[in-house]
Amino acid sequence: MLRLYEVIDKVKPLDDEAMKLAQERLDSLTKPQGSLGRLEEVAIRIAGITGKYIPDVPRKLSILMAADHGVVEEGVSAFPQNVTVEMVENFVNGGAAMNVLSRHVRSDLWVVDIGVKGDIPDKRGIIDKKIARGTSNMTKGQAMDRDEAIKAIEVGISMVEQAKAMGYGLIGTGEMGIGNTTASAAVVCAFSGISPQDVVGRGTGIDDEGLKRKVRAIEKALEVNRPDPADPVDVLSKVGGLEIAGLAGVFLGCAAMRIPVLIDGFISGAAALVAYKLKPLAGEYMIASHLSMERGHRVELDMMGLKPLLNLDMRLGEGTGAALAMGIVDVSIKIIREMATFEEAGVSQKE
Amino acid sequence: MLRLYEVIDKVKPLDDEAMKLAQERLDSLTKPQGSLGRLEEVAIRIAGITGKYIPDVPRKLSILMAADHGVVEEGVSAFPQNVTVEMVENFVNGGAAMNVLSRHVRSDLWVVDIGVKGDIPDKRGIIDKKIARGTSNMTKGQAMDRDEAIKAIEVGISMVEQAKAMGYGLIGTGEMGIGNTTASAAVVCAFSGISPQDVVGRGTGIDDEGLKRKVRAIEKALEVNRPDPADPVDVLSKVGGLEIAGLAGVFLGCAAMRIPVLIDGFISGAAALVAYKLKPLAGEYMIASHLSMERGHRVELDMMGLKPLLNLDMRLGEGTGAALAMGIVDVSIKIIREMATFEEAGVSQKE
Repeated sequence: MLRLYEVIDKVKPLDDEAMKLAQERLDSLTKPQGSLGRLEEVAIRIAGITGKYIPDVPRKLSILMAADHGVVEEGVSAFPQNVTVEMVENFVNGGAAMNVLSRHVRSDLWVVDIGVKGDIPDKRGIIDKKIARGTSNMTKGQAMDRDEAIKAIEVGISMVEQAKAMGYGLIGTGEMGIGNTTASAAVVCAFSGISPQDVVGRGTGIDDEGLKRKVRAIEKALEVNRPDPADPVDVLSKVGGLEIAGLAGVFLGCAAMRIPVLIDGFISGAAALVAYKLKPLAGEYMIASHLSMERGHRVELDMMGLKPLLNLDMRLGEGTGAALAMGIVDVSIKIIREMATFEEAGVSQKE
Repeated sequence: MLRLYEVIDKVKPLDDEAMKLAQERLDSLTKPQGSLGRLEEVAIRIAGITGKYIPDVPRKLSILMAADHGVVEEGVSAFPQNVTVEMVENFVNGGAAMNVLSRHVRSDLWVVDIGVKGDIPDKRGIIDKKIARGTSNMTKGQAMDRDEAIKAIEVGISMVEQAKAMGYGLIGTGEMGIGNTTASAAVVCAFSGISPQDVVGRGTGIDDEGLKRKVRAIEKALEVNRPDPADPVDVLSKVGGLEIAGLAGVFLGCAAMRIPVLIDGFISGAAALVAYKLKPLAGEYMIASHLSMERGHRVELDMMGLKPLLNLDMRLGEGTGAALAMGIVDVSIKIIREMATFEEAGVSQKE
């Protein structure tokens, strides 16, 4: 299994030659040049990531990491903590929004317990990689040990290694964890220096009083832990979460193994940001699927210079935005693979 | 076959009861209320259109109308006129972007010759409804007779009648016709009173000189014809096009027959606007698929109070944006059909 430092070292720039050839091919197809806008941009990016100027239509996988958060003791969530376990069961039984969307885009779905507090009654269908029974309450000390954070990142890396061995060529990221918008906001604040007041959103739908508690919890966590923005693992272990760490590993693993990876919403974006801070080049392998209604999401994407593909006022998480965008990636690749050129179709060119 | 005046009369309001039940069902599903944003909005709209609060996943059809424009004599397009015929052949052979996108979303595609100037060498795969060999040059008189405009609208209506009989439940609109962004801009100017300068875009990619010619052509057409904005058929026949008229008929037919219909880009939007002006209630049956890069498109959508689902910097037409959005409509319906409720899944509710 690849270790964190090895993976960081393995991330290389995109393939410029493949991107140039992809651009040339797109310009030869029967349409005004550039008229498919961001679909063309995505096709070129996939060429650069995979090194194939006519990329294959990928086998798709969504990796959903679930974990709990000690900070829920501070009353930061609208839903009780046991919803994490209950939703994991819902994923396994196929009844969640993420299941519907994954089926729709024909993506497989791996549900990983990387730190759920409770016991999942029926473990069939779950990938058990539990590192701890949730994090500790970050308002009273660090959320997890540095070792645990690295271990969780390496779980994410190992998932990508397995996915690559199984032939997956496009990976979406998703998460479940009551309290995880609080941890994500803390991560964003730690890296950006922006005050919690300006990052925090309503998560699953907390009321005004809850929102105030959430801001105060993050302020306290930052004060108590003083995370070092120059040390992403420090930030992650002090105010992050186990699923955020695991997904950071997925982003790094995808970059190292040259697999395009989709950022979902705010929590997935926090994980992407950790990966980006560890290795900025990893950002080139990321595609921002959508813009979440959770306001801190835009801050994350701006910090990485990424522009979301979709904006459908969604704020569910689970990987739902990433799954929707898989359809856009697929169609971008099909455009470059399946369209006729002006020459093939006997269509006259621009005068 | 239904006549224009009959169809206008048949358009009735959406089914409020079905929409209310759809909202209630969405709120009972295992997700924070409203967290799927515009997907929920679309599901509710489809319920209101079809009268089923749990709508069926529809059989999908794209209707692509092709026609030519006399105004191309004025040098308003970057591509020669014979590209209309050549692209029709490309559609039949499956090599155009619209074919790739239609296959991707599993939509059937009907290609209708409603006014192509040239002869299509191989008519297999074409629906021949040719009303004229293109319009006349609108800078020198009206583009077509009032009778022709009505006949073209009724072609569109009859297509929807056929589609309904064949069990299609979602219709996308597309077009091909060199010069048709000029006609569409003239239609928008006629209805809105906005000056051509502020509506006209680059279409397939015309240069600065061409853009000036395009603006002048529209100014002249409006001056020579003086279309009456209170009489949509007058606008259509004086400065419109045969494919615009045909698609206006598709929009009206869908509204009358309670089939959700997707607006594509600028030309499809001009057709939607004609239908909307003939019967504002028809707008309730339209879904704006995307925001085109062609600047007048936003003007059209604003006039009808519609908000596009996607914004991918596309400007190709053909029905490509509408086809992409079919995937969004499908998934919206699958959400309401397939997700588990809190009760079914045993997930705790908000505290």
